Amino acid sequence: MSDPLPPLAAIPPDVAALADYEPLARERMTPSAWAYFSGGAGDEWTLGENVAAFARHRLRPRVLRDLKGGGTGITLFGADLAAPILLAPVAFQKLLNPDGELATVMAAGALDTAMVVSTQASVRIEDIAAHASAPLWFQLYIQPDRAFTADLVRRAEAAGYKALVVTVDAPVNGLRNREQRAGFALPPGIGPVNLAGMQPPPPSPRGALLFGTPLLDLAPTWADLAWLRGLTRLPIILKGITDPDDASRTVEAGMDGLIVSNHGGRTLDGVPAGIDLLPPIATAVDGAIPVLMDGGIRRGTDVLRALALGAKAVLIGRPYIFALAAAGAPGVAHVIRILRAELELAMALTGCRDIASIDRSVLNPPDGVAR
Amino acid sequence: MSDPLPPLAAIPPDVAALADYEPLARERMTPSAWAYFSGGAGDEWTLGENVAAFARHRLRPRVLRDLKGGGTGITLFGADLAAPILLAPVAFQKLLNPDGELATVMAAGALDTAMVVSTQASVRIEDIAAHASAPLWFQLYIQPDRAFTADLVRRAEAAGYKALVVTVDAPVNGLRNREQRAGFALPPGIGPVNLAGMQPPPPSPRGALLFGTPLLDLAPTWADLAWLRGLTRLPIILKGITDPDDASRTVEAGMDGLIVSNHGGRTLDGVPAGIDLLPPIATAVDGAIPVLMDGGIRRGTDVLRALALGAKAVLIGRPYIFALAAAGAPGVAHVIRILRAELELAMALTGCRDIASIDRSVLNPPDGVAR
Amino acid sequence: MSDPLPPLAAIPPDVAALADYEPLARERMTPSAWAYFSGGAGDEWTLGENVAAFARHRLRPRVLRDLKGGGTGITLFGADLAAPILLAPVAFQKLLNPDGELATVMAAGALDTAMVVSTQASVRIEDIAAHASAPLWFQLYIQPDRAFTADLVRRAEAAGYKALVVTVDAPVNGLRNREQRAGFALPPGIGPVNLAGMQPPPPSPRGALLFGTPLLDLAPTWADLAWLRGLTRLPIILKGITDPDDASRTVEAGMDGLIVSNHGGRTLDGVPAGIDLLPPIATAVDGAIPVLMDGGIRRGTDVLRALALGAKAVLIGRPYIFALAAAGAPGVAHVIRILRAELELAMALTGCRDIASIDRSVLNPPDGVAR
Amino acid sequence: MSDPLPPLAAIPPDVAALADYEPLARERMTPSAWAYFSGGAGDEWTLGENVAAFARHRLRPRVLRDLKGGGTGITLFGADLAAPILLAPVAFQKLLNPDGELATVMAAGALDTAMVVSTQASVRIEDIAAHASAPLWFQLYIQPDRAFTADLVRRAEAAGYKALVVTVDAPVNGLRNREQRAGFALPPGIGPVNLAGMQPPPPSPRGALLFGTPLLDLAPTWADLAWLRGLTRLPIILKGITDPDDASRTVEAGMDGLIVSNHGGRTLDGVPAGIDLLPPIATAVDGAIPVLMDGGIRRGTDVLRALALGAKAVLIGRPYIFALAAAGAPGVAHVIRILRAELELAMALTGCRDIASIDRSVLNPPDGVAR
Repeated sequence: MSDPLPPLAAIPPDVAALADYEPLARERMTPSAWAYFSGGAGDEWTLGENVAAFARHRLRPRVLRDLKGGGTGITLFGADLAAPILLAPVAFQKLLNPDGELATVMAAGALDTAMVVSTQASVRIEDIAAHASAPLWFQLYIQPDRAFTADLVRRAEAAGYKALVVTVDAPVNGLRNREQRAGFALPPGIGPVNLAGMQPPPPSPRGALLFGTPLLDLAPTWADLAWLRGLTRLPIILKGITDPDDASRTVEAGMDGLIVSNHGGRTLDGVPAGIDLLPPIATAVDGAIPVLMDGGIRRGTDVLRALALGAKAVLIGRPYIFALAAAGAPGVAHVIRILRAELELAMALTGCRDIASIDRSVLNPPDGVAR
Repeated sequence: MSDPLPPLAAIPPDVAALADYEPLARERMTPSAWAYFSGGAGDEWTLGENVAAFARHRLRPRVLRDLKGGGTGITLFGADLAAPILLAPVAFQKLLNPDGELATVMAAGALDTAMVVSTQASVRIEDIAAHASAPLWFQLYIQPDRAFTADLVRRAEAAGYKALVVTVDAPVNGLRNREQRAGFALPPGIGPVNLAGMQPPPPSPRGALLFGTPLLDLAPTWADLAWLRGLTRLPIILKGITDPDDASRTVEAGMDGLIVSNHGGRTLDGVPAGIDLLPPIATAVDGAIPVLMDGGIRRGTDVLRALALGAKAVLIGRPYIFALAAAGAPGVAHVIRILRAELELAMALTGCRDIASIDRSVLNPPDGVAR
Repeated sequence: MSDPLPPLAAIPPDVAALADYEPLARERMTPSAWAYFSGGAGDEWTLGENVAAFARHRLRPRVLRDLKGGGTGITLFGADLAAPILLAPVAFQKLLNPDGELATVMAAGALDTAMVVSTQASVRIEDIAAHASAPLWFQLYIQPDRAFTADLVRRAEAAGYKALVVTVDAPVNGLRNREQRAGFALPPGIGPVNLAGMQPPPPSPRGALLFGTPLLDLAPTWADLAWLRGLTRLPIILKGITDPDDASRTVEAGMDGLIVSNHGGRTLDGVPAGIDLLPPIATAVDGAIPVLMDGGIRRGTDVLRALALGAKAVLIGRPYIFALAAAGAPGVAHVIRILRAELELAMALTGCRDIASIDRSVLNPPDGVAR
Repeated sequence: MSDPLPPLAAIPPDVAALADYEPLARERMTPSAWAYFSGGAGDEWTLGENVAAFARHRLRPRVLRDLKGGGTGITLFGADLAAPILLAPVAFQKLLNPDGELATVMAAGALDTAMVVSTQASVRIEDIAAHASAPLWFQLYIQPDRAFTADLVRRAEAAGYKALVVTVDAPVNGLRNREQRAGFALPPGIGPVNLAGMQPPPPSPRGALLFGTPLLDLAPTWADLAWLRGLTRLPIILKGITDPDDASRTVEAGMDGLIVSNHGGRTLDGVPAGIDLLPPIATAVDGAIPVLMDGGIRRGTDVLRALALGAKAVLIGRPYIFALAAAGAPGVAHVIRILRAELELAMALTGCRDIASIDRSVLNPPDGVAR
């Protein structure tokens, strides 16, 4: 693999789709950063399945419908969004671009797109907020140090973040062999700056692997969610729900939303694709709270499929990350714009003039033979 | 890719099947013309699926039946055709051969095959008609300039075209990334000559992508079909129906036929293969009007499958286009002849002595295990 | 491809399975002979599927059963055979070995294996019979010249052939593009010597492809089978039955047996694999006459599967043909011996001590998940 | 292939998963030893399917559960084991490492893991026991010489082995073509030392392949299991059960456990994967005796799947064998530790705090679409 290269000065004319950024990004990243951002858990089955599964949900065009006055706008947690597409939380964006999360938030603002900022951002959340011109949500890992966690929530509220996205599917790190093999480590000067000052957990007993260590003993539980619920009036959205029963419990626990997600295939390999996890969860929630999804979105048709199967909106991760590495803020903006244009096209060709009119009727049966 | 080459002076003896023309054509085309004619929408899943899906419909030979006096002739919209195989509308054929559509129409005539001429033909429709010795149909895009559209219909009637094929699945261009990446553009001297003099649509508002632009605001609707129905006594055949409900509405709207088509995989990626879209539409139409299909036909066995699943006839596109590029009019005639011979063979081996005797009994169940 | 080589003087020690002969054969054959013997119809989907389909029928081992005194012998049409494995009819074997069918019949005799001799054998059927020490059957194409056909039957009876195998699935040649592309033609000195003196059919009318030509007008029908039934007291076995209704009619027509076969994938591409065609035909025949099968047998486990699904015996074609080309008569004998040893092993490991005890209980469900 | 290399002095840092040992092992083994240990029966379909099938069983994460105080310990046949993972019996380990089975048993002891010692061990079972610090079981092939077999059982009892694992699925050797082609043979100084002094079976009659030979005539039957049951008070566990009816008979015969196994794909090709064979057998046994499984375990998630589908524990074979060849005892210990850590992670992410809480609820439906 060649040495990393600086971001492109201009977007090449043959970049026509989100996937076109991936090889450009790879050239511009160190092998270990590439392993960190592109890799998944275990044998990376879920990582690949996230993308591949969309093709099994076949579209059904409808013709000659009146499309005048249509659009892609939605209202979500009280905010008007230009399209049902958000930027997913991704850590350490300075590994990709010298401006890190600041480049991303400026691109998001330019295209009126909500961004979810990671607990592990490499820029202070207050600085990100200072550069924002579209809604920001804050992604929270409940830390072993609960007092520090409460302080983080206060900081997010004060900085104007509009919602908390609590990631619940990663009490421990996933098994990311590609990262291990590449020897990924944060370089000097890049780190989780928003966690500065946090109390480290006690050491693990000798010989323990996971069970019996503070990592699992202090992992958050539903009780911690109740504590958090009492702590803030911000909407709380659980990210990483894959089980319909957990989805029902999310509603019962008074949460405001949930994100169906297998964490981009980065935690447990062997979990179905995000798009396949969505339908039973949408059924379980039955409209009580908004259901979002992420995982494998690469096309406007994928957004359409997710909305057809019950999502109110989707989040993208790697596609904007690769654009950030390849071309900085203009790349991120380009990715958002491509995806929105593709969604409009997919809506027009399936006869949907607005987001509310997207439902299962835009899909053919998933088994490869229309009936 | 090497420079384009002139058409072959003679068809090589090892050209035995439609697919054999594809590599020969590619050598003779510019990379951007190749991208334009061979490419599909998005990730080209539908493009590939159109061809691949046929193999999932397994044939059932029947033996020792009396085949004397059989044949492949049909009557369609009042015309006797030698076989249930037509040439689909394809734009800008001068990109493939200096004579363009004139070469195609002469080959079609030589083999007594109906041709559907594109609105975007690179030769005037009157000139094409002057060279025709088999039935011609005219493919119509309803243009934003409705008066011009009416004039086109009048010209087609006057030139002796026998039917209007109204393409309804492409109110906007498909997302053809391969074309974009190849930078496809029409060279000087080749263009949609039949649209000369048409009024351009008003400019789009700044920032609009598709919704809110004249492209969608002026796109044809069912109301325009009613207008067209009142405008002409020619049979009107809707091309691009993929939804059974749209098929029923086609019947109710007084149309004379329909073509099940995903536009050769060129509009919306993720739509099932043409052959898989056919059965539910044939069921919905239930014989009220003729149902045709296109998409992925490469073999006489594919024609047999389409007829078995409810089509009255099929159209081929890329196969004759590639033959036109490779070997001109003789190539097109060769392709038609191969396909007809293959259809006769497939009929003989499944025990069908004429087109009327082809039904679902020539197929085994589609799941790979005969029962 | 290198020039053909003479047969191997000795079988190499690393030839352990039937498939190992294929590359050795290819080296020793002309490209056009290779195309003729190894190729199939159309896109060769059925050719590949014949082999691939076996793996979808999963085996079920049974343990600790008493296997003493077991064996593989069967009785078929009154003859005792060492194993339910026969040599299928294959034309023009002198293309593969200077001794042609004589090499094959000597190997068959050495291993006590019945051989079906082709109408298109390159050696006179009387000469083959003179070298036989195991049962011979005669494969018959009913020729347009019915008197000549009757004479062929008389010759087979006189030479001691024990059954007629009437091939009914090839009234016309299959569409074998690979042969066409390779320009296959019989070399001087090799031909269908048993058809010498036959009256050629009348010429076809100009422009006719298949329908309307003598080829189809004179193709055999069920009426000709009745004629043949009256002509001989030999058992008549129809080869090329793929449809359960045709199988029932075979019984009603007083035939003595049938062979489920798609002609090694050489007639109509898109027909299911032989092993998948077998079960519904075995059900339709319901034991009234013996059902045999061919197509894709490469392993003793394949023989076991075919017997489990209703076949009384199987025929192999290409495997012995490739061995004949690679190593002459010793190669053919080796192939028969390997297959028989593999069948014994498969029987032992599924707890079957004789052929009669093989039934569906040796199979797991075909969908990849045992229940 | 290069010459074999000595074991690695240190485990390379990029060895992160069990599969990483495979290429390292291959470099260090002779081609024929590689063929022997890595190869399978026939076309090796089952060999590959054993691994591939796990991915069809999709995991279902559950979040926010209390994991404090959890662990992976189980009790099996009266012994406490650190995890439900055992080392499967593998023959002739001196082919892999100069210390052979002694290296393996020391690694197993270091990680508190039970080992099953093969009848065909290349070290005396008493010597292996002398180096053991974790439970040992003895794998027994019932030999044609029954008196010698009884003596083997007595030796295992005397040496402190805690259970007998009677392999019942290999009355004859599997058809291992790769071994045949590689000309595998034991080198001088390595052999089945525990079988020294055994009486050889009588010679086979000329011409017999399997049926009619002493190999099959003296193969063990259920009657021999009754004899063995009367011979020892050790728990008897049948290895190689793939049929639910055989599983029921195992219970009825008074056996203490069974191992669902297709012998690592080394006996009969075409048998389903171990993980797919497991569910119907677990249903048939219905808790009467412990059901274990082996075949294709490469990940902690695979262990989780097997437990979810009814196994009490699993055995691994090739993964530790390859680690033994690559890095000796430290490699074996590393493999055990990786697998245990992966299992803990998989349990934590599916919300299982102990082995007893693992059931089918950790799985999504196997058809690729969650419902």
